[in-house]
Amino acid sequence: MLKHWRPGEDTLDKKGTKARLKVRRAALAGLQQELKAAGLPVIVQVEGWGAAGKGTLLKSLIRELDPRFYRVVSTKFPTEEERRWPFLKRHMERIPPAGKILFLDSGWVDELVWDALRGELTGEELDRRLESARVMERQLAAGGYLLVKMFLHIDEATQRDRLDALEDDRDTAWRVSGDDRRQNRNYPRALELFDRCLAATQTDWAPWKVLDGTAGDGMLLAAADWLYERLAGALKCRPAPEPVREEWPLLPMPPLSACPLDGRLDRESYQKKLKECRKRLAKMHNRLYRRRVPLVVVYEGWDAAGKGGNIKRLTSALDPRGCEVQPIASPSPEEAARHYLWRFWTRLPKTGHVAVFDRSWYGRVMVERIEGFCSEADWKRAYDEINQFERELTDAGAVVVKFWVNIDRDTQLARFRDRENDPAKRWKITDEDWRNREKWDQYETAVDEMLARTSTENAPWHVLPSVDKRYARIRAMETVLEAVEKAL
Amino acid sequence: MLKHWRPGEDTLDKKGTKARLKVRRAALAGLQQELKAAGLPVIVQVEGWGAAGKGTLLKSLIRELDPRFYRVVSTKFPTEEERRWPFLKRHMERIPPAGKILFLDSGWVDELVWDALRGELTGEELDRRLESARVMERQLAAGGYLLVKMFLHIDEATQRDRLDALEDDRDTAWRVSGDDRRQNRNYPRALELFDRCLAATQTDWAPWKVLDGTAGDGMLLAAADWLYERLAGALKCRPAPEPVREEWPLLPMPPLSACPLDGRLDRESYQKKLKECRKRLAKMHNRLYRRRVPLVVVYEGWDAAGKGGNIKRLTSALDPRGCEVQPIASPSPEEAARHYLWRFWTRLPKTGHVAVFDRSWYGRVMVERIEGFCSEADWKRAYDEINQFERELTDAGAVVVKFWVNIDRDTQLARFRDRENDPAKRWKITDEDWRNREKWDQYETAVDEMLARTSTENAPWHVLPSVDKRYARIRAMETVLEAVEKAL
Repeated sequence: MLKHWRPGEDTLDKKGTKARLKVRRAALAGLQQELKAAGLPVIVQVEGWGAAGKGTLLKSLIRELDPRFYRVVSTKFPTEEERRWPFLKRHMERIPPAGKILFLDSGWVDELVWDALRGELTGEELDRRLESARVMERQLAAGGYLLVKMFLHIDEATQRDRLDALEDDRDTAWRVSGDDRRQNRNYPRALELFDRCLAATQTDWAPWKVLDGTAGDGMLLAAADWLYERLAGALKCRPAPEPVREEWPLLPMPPLSACPLDGRLDRESYQKKLKECRKRLAKMHNRLYRRRVPLVVVYEGWDAAGKGGNIKRLTSALDPRGCEVQPIASPSPEEAARHYLWRFWTRLPKTGHVAVFDRSWYGRVMVERIEGFCSEADWKRAYDEINQFERELTDAGAVVVKFWVNIDRDTQLARFRDRENDPAKRWKITDEDWRNREKWDQYETAVDEMLARTSTENAPWHVLPSVDKRYARIRAMETVLEAVEKAL
Repeated sequence: MLKHWRPGEDTLDKKGTKARLKVRRAALAGLQQELKAAGLPVIVQVEGWGAAGKGTLLKSLIRELDPRFYRVVSTKFPTEEERRWPFLKRHMERIPPAGKILFLDSGWVDELVWDALRGELTGEELDRRLESARVMERQLAAGGYLLVKMFLHIDEATQRDRLDALEDDRDTAWRVSGDDRRQNRNYPRALELFDRCLAATQTDWAPWKVLDGTAGDGMLLAAADWLYERLAGALKCRPAPEPVREEWPLLPMPPLSACPLDGRLDRESYQKKLKECRKRLAKMHNRLYRRRVPLVVVYEGWDAAGKGGNIKRLTSALDPRGCEVQPIASPSPEEAARHYLWRFWTRLPKTGHVAVFDRSWYGRVMVERIEGFCSEADWKRAYDEINQFERELTDAGAVVVKFWVNIDRDTQLARFRDRENDPAKRWKITDEDWRNREKWDQYETAVDEMLARTSTENAPWHVLPSVDKRYARIRAMETVLEAVEKAL
């Protein structure tokens, strides 16, 4: 896209450009209330060469905007700490809420090109990351986000001259990094890499706009025009990505009705096995730390199936400084205003750490599906999105273990009654639990579909019979141990 | 506190200790609902020697707790990035919301002792940080937080033996850092430093508990007893710090009624000065970056005084990648559940960056005072707390500039009417603005008191006459420029 790109003819004089720019900026400010009313979240990604003028461009775009409606984020190279999570995490965690604009001074493109130039990414790794970026953009767009992408282009000589000029001034010299010089010295290679990144994510619904970094106000006007056009267009009709159904290597899963529930353990064997498992888990956690492998454990299951007690037994054997239980309830207003996977991206464990999700992203295809909290298209799309999300985790080296804690209706009823009769447990049972119980059949259908469509080789489901909670606890610990041992 | 500390006699046998521990853990779990109902936020700070058993202790304390009610945070040494903010920032940003417990595996004590051992803190700097920590604890306690502090103590030989044992096992060897060894080699010096930290923050309302790290289950029981005692006590009566009124070197401030409002600028001089200021500001920002000085600009003022336009003129001259406007509205639920300064601590600029607060922490002594959103004791205490907060910023090298954007009643009325009559501006005026206008006199009293009590030499107030907005804008830019020039 860049190699054969040529700037268009400038037909306006300097004064005419300035006047048009002023009008355009005012028009952009005028759209803010509409964006808010429409609840449209917008990501404006400004990529480009070092010293191409990204700062000036951003300053121009936000000039008349109200700070309540936007944020500018300058993305630096990932720190050592940030590299302990999947590549996409730091990009996903800053997505804006509905009605707001996020301006990015460089996003993932800059990061990938630098990493590749420094020799820290092989061609194959770059391809995988481009695929990750593509998937992220598709998910965001399908989730209602508008992506506005610009690339600020300058030629090799212009870049060199600008870097020289910056270095000549004491107050701007610090802006020129060794990496900027490296980029300039390797201009043809960097050009090829930029081209590859742009081509990989050039789509009808999120196209790139290449801007001429030498055109001064003409460039600022072109950028403002582009932003206005994309915003106004999306307010009329949000550009949705064409659906792409991926083929997943799914593991065969029997329906719940065919899953046995008769696992039992007597108290004595339980105590013995528990002690043994706890020792093995403590050792395992040390190995995870040392090998820097993150572990994600997902608990889903019927109300009163014994998730809480099961989780407690598992985590109490692990080092609390490297293990966090994430109880997932209904989303906070901050969370509800963003992509539904955002609150999970931000809760992922770093390398060597363990995150245990007490309920999870699978709410999308269970409670949200059944209660109508999302549209049919939303939850139908979610199986793919979730498989993609989990693939990001396992591609980054994580071990993912998913449990459905299973009981039958009678067992649930007995436990509900037990909770109601015990003052110490009464807070655990609510009207909502009784209402959910009435929807048992709907849930069973949803769970069966979920198990069938999201049990992948890299992130398999395990159905835990939990009529005997002791049996379920030991099975859960053993399953985690097996999964980690297999992975290490 | 540590040098002459001797462990108490253990009067229970092993079995008796285990049984008591089990009972105590269950009792702790039983308090969770009460903590929630009382909205009590709790910080449990576990400090101690390397290899003293902090992980084991934490694991024991949380064993029967519900993950919805607590979080464990393991504090590492501050990263290079974290060192770009005031020392307290990373400790303040993780404080828990009402009703929840934060368990800290080391807090500020560990950080200070390590820094001092490594020779990165002079004795004087250490004293200043201890003073900061003291102030933070006092503010948190006054704000309703319960602080439970423990120190896990072992002697030099025990520490050495444990470090050796950890290093002998491949899976635990990574746990022993060079710093642990350094601590052990310099045990007497570290002991003295720990003692100094503990003594500096030993108070009736947040006392330290020293625990014997060689006592095994006896130590776990002592810790659980201590936590239970502190929690149960606070549920009956929250320990409040005795009030300490600090003497501040205050600048004399005339009341608003004596502040002139007649500054004027004609359009031509304005355009000329604006251009000049914009150039100087851009240059200034480069110098701030280079010298790594953070800048905090606070805007307070009457409704319709012209804050928004003033801020826009100032910030549009700065690099948007290093400048963020922070619009402060009523707190989100997340924010309202924490100390009132939390949402400002988390919004501070890092070195070289600029944060412009469109309204600020001064809401505490204006709108919260007048509308009764906090108690009289709360806002009366706040003058000191705010001065302390700003001292933390300037001690860390920040430049702090505070504006009261000033107009008279008639000007406000004219602007309100103007907004109502202009469809493009109508969203800017709400019923609340009219209601606030009726409370002009109350606000004037509060503002006068605020100006008189919080205009310090390190963070002075500037009253900006804004009947002529052009004049106010130029004055604001010039004031920021002067303040930064003085500081550099």
